[in-house]
Amino acid sequence: MIITIDGGITAPAGFRAAGVHCGIKARAGALDLALIVSDRPATAAAVFTTNLAVAPPIVVSREHLAASAGQARAVVVNSGCANACTGDAGRQVAYLMAAETARAVDCDLEDVLVMSTGVIGVQLDARTVTQGIIAAAEALAVEGHADAARAIMTTDPFPKARAVEVSTSRGSFRIGGICKGSGMIEPRMATMLGVLTCDAAVSATLLQRVLRDVTEHTFNAITVDGECSTNDCVALLANGASGMALTEADLPLLSDALFEVCRYLATEIVRGGEGATKLVTVQVTGARTYDDARQAARAIANSLLVKTAIHGGDPNWGRLVAVAGRAGVAFVLEHAAVRIGDVVLFDQGRPYDERAPQAADYLAGKDISVTVDLGAGGGEEATMWTCDLSEEYVQINAEYRT
Amino acid sequence: MIITIDGGITAPAGFRAAGVHCGIKARAGALDLALIVSDRPATAAAVFTTNLAVAPPIVVSREHLAASAGQARAVVVNSGCANACTGDAGRQVAYLMAAETARAVDCDLEDVLVMSTGVIGVQLDARTVTQGIIAAAEALAVEGHADAARAIMTTDPFPKARAVEVSTSRGSFRIGGICKGSGMIEPRMATMLGVLTCDAAVSATLLQRVLRDVTEHTFNAITVDGECSTNDCVALLANGASGMALTEADLPLLSDALFEVCRYLATEIVRGGEGATKLVTVQVTGARTYDDARQAARAIANSLLVKTAIHGGDPNWGRLVAVAGRAGVAFVLEHAAVRIGDVVLFDQGRPYDERAPQAADYLAGKDISVTVDLGAGGGEEATMWTCDLSEEYVQINAEYRT
Repeated sequence: MIITIDGGITAPAGFRAAGVHCGIKARAGALDLALIVSDRPATAAAVFTTNLAVAPPIVVSREHLAASAGQARAVVVNSGCANACTGDAGRQVAYLMAAETARAVDCDLEDVLVMSTGVIGVQLDARTVTQGIIAAAEALAVEGHADAARAIMTTDPFPKARAVEVSTSRGSFRIGGICKGSGMIEPRMATMLGVLTCDAAVSATLLQRVLRDVTEHTFNAITVDGECSTNDCVALLANGASGMALTEADLPLLSDALFEVCRYLATEIVRGGEGATKLVTVQVTGARTYDDARQAARAIANSLLVKTAIHGGDPNWGRLVAVAGRAGVAFVLEHAAVRIGDVVLFDQGRPYDERAPQAADYLAGKDISVTVDLGAGGGEEATMWTCDLSEEYVQINAEYRT
Repeated sequence: MIITIDGGITAPAGFRAAGVHCGIKARAGALDLALIVSDRPATAAAVFTTNLAVAPPIVVSREHLAASAGQARAVVVNSGCANACTGDAGRQVAYLMAAETARAVDCDLEDVLVMSTGVIGVQLDARTVTQGIIAAAEALAVEGHADAARAIMTTDPFPKARAVEVSTSRGSFRIGGICKGSGMIEPRMATMLGVLTCDAAVSATLLQRVLRDVTEHTFNAITVDGECSTNDCVALLANGASGMALTEADLPLLSDALFEVCRYLATEIVRGGEGATKLVTVQVTGARTYDDARQAARAIANSLLVKTAIHGGDPNWGRLVAVAGRAGVAFVLEHAAVRIGDVVLFDQGRPYDERAPQAADYLAGKDISVTVDLGAGGGEEATMWTCDLSEEYVQINAEYRT
C-alpha cells in the first residue's frame, strides 16, 4: 500500500537536509543553497540533460557517479546561478562545491553530486558558495526539508515536495523528493533539478533502471516552454535505513511508489510554470505506435496556439486538429476526434460546435484535460502535461535579467 | 538586372485582379474574396501544406493542377473562413468555388486554383461566396492588385505585395506576388497563402522546380509560432504575355527574380506576425551539414525564451547557446560563438558580458540579426526569419474566436 506522508525529502529515514542564504541571490534572506545528506552510504542513480551545452555541475556529477560506481552521500544544490557556459573557471567552482561538501559532511569527494540552477553565463563566486556549504552542513536536520525545497527555487511560485510510505508484508520503506521548475522546461531526459531519497536498500543498477523508466513518464512527459536546459538533472539516493532491501522482484512496487512521487512533482512543476494559470493534461489516443502518440502529445503540449486558446478559455478544437495533422505522425482526419474534458467537439470528421459553450465552461477551471484521437487505427496512447501560455510568461521572460 | 517596381500581382502583363467584400467577414466593407486571372492560358506550379489535416480547397487545387498538367487561368481566394475540418460539405463548397470562377471568367474548371484562410471548422456559405465570385469577376482590372492583396488578409496588420522587372539582352519580364500570413506560421513546405504571377513563358516543369527551390529558402524559412497550417499554399502562374520565353538556361535568372519577390514577401509576413514588433534574422554558421544548420536555426527561431528575450531587448546569449545545445545537431560549446548584430557576446567558450550594453542598444531596433556559430568544425550555414514574442501575441490568440 502506498500512502502520501509529510516530511518531503527527509521523510525517508537516515536523511537530513538544510537550505540557507549565502548571497548567490541578491535579495536578503532568499534561500539559495541546499544540502541533502544520507547519514550512511547510499546507492545513487541520476538522469542528466541531453543538452550539448552541458553545465559544469552536470559534468562533475556524472564523473562522480561513474567514479563511485553508483554511490553517493550528499547532494549540494545552489540556485540563482546555473554555472553554465562558464568554461574552465566554472568547472573549478563545481569541483570546489563537491570538495567543500565532502569536507563539511565527512565523505569521499566522489560521493557528492552537484547541481546548479539560475542565470546562464555568470560565474558562481567560490567564496560565497563555500560559506553557504559550511552553513548548510551545520544546519543539517530532519526538519530542514522545507528549507531545502525552498533553496532550490528560481522563478518557481511555490516549493515542490512530496513523500510516500510503502507498506508491505515484509515491512515498510519511504520515498521523498523535491524539485524546481518554472521556465526552460521540456527536459527530454531528466528534468530541471530534482532530488529524491529512499530508505530502502536498492542496488545501483536497479535504482538507475527504475529512475530512468519513471522519469520517462513523469519529468520527461512535461513541458512549459519546450526548452531542455543546460542543467537538467534528477538524482535518487537509496540508503537502506528502513531495514528493507528491494530486489528485482520488488521492481513493480518500487516503480509505483517512485512514480507517485515523481508524477506529483512533475505536474507541480507545470502548475508552477512561468505565467501558468492552468495545468493541462494532453492525452493522445488512437495512435499507430507509442512513439507516434508521444510525438503528437508533445506537439500539442508545445503548440502556442493550443496553449493560448486554453489560456483564453476558447474551446478551439480546430487548432488541436491542425497540430495533430502537422505532428509528423500517422493521422486520419476522417476518423479523428477531439474531446475537451468530457465534451466531444469533433468526431469522425464532424464538428459539434453546438457543444462549445459547455466546453468553454469546463475551460474556466484550473485542471484541464484535452484528448485527441489520431484516428490512425491503432490502440496506442500517451500523456503529456503542459500549462497555458499567458501574457505573464512573456513579461517574466522579456525581463529576466534586466 | 532586377529592379523593384509597383503594381504587385498585376505588374506582369496579361493579369487582372480584384478584391471584394461578400460577407464572409462580418465587418461591413472588409474585403474577403480575391480573384487573380490571366487573360491567356498560363502554366502553373504550386506547393502545398504537409499538414495531414489538409483543407478541402487544398485538395481541390492539387487535383486541378494534376488534371490540367500544370495549367491555370485563375486563382480564387477567400479569407475569414479556412474551410478546414469541414468534411464533405466543405469539399462541395471548394468545388463550387472553382466552378463559379470557371463560369465567371470563362475557363475550364481544372484551370482554377482555390485557396481559403481564416477560422478552422466553420462551413463556408455557398451563396455568399458565389456572390463574391461574381462581383469579383466583374471588378477584375489591372488596378485591382491592391484590393486583392487586402482581400486575402486575416489578422495581418498590413497587406503584402511585391513586383520586380527583369531586364535581359533578349527583353524583359516581370514577376509579381501577394501573400498573407500573421498566425499559424511555420509552413514547412509551402506557406500561408501566396499567389505569384509571371509574364514570361515557362514550362510547367521548370516552373514547379523553381517555385519549390525558392520556397524552401523563403516561405519555408520563416516562422512566427511554429505552426504549419491546414491551408498553406503558394501558387505561381506564368502566362508568356511579355513575349519572353525562359528555358533551362535562364533558370538562375528566373530563380533570382522569384527569390527577390518571395524573400521580401516572406520577411513581410514575419514582420506582420501576430504581436510582432521586430523582424529577427537567425543565422547559424559552423555547422557540420546544411540540415544541421537549418535545424538549429529553426530551433532558435522557435524558442520562446529567445523570442521573449529579444522582445525585452535583453542580449541573453546564454539562451541562444542553450537552444543550440538542445537542437539535436553537432555542437561544441568550447568552439561555439554568439553574435547579436555585430557584437560578439560569447566566443570559444568565453563570455564577453562587458559588451552587453552595446548589444542591448542594438536590440532596441526593429531589424535584428543574431548569429550562432555551432563550433562543430563545418562550414555549412542556414538562415531563418522569425519575430519576437510579445504579450500581444498571447492576447490575440487567447481571444481569436471569443
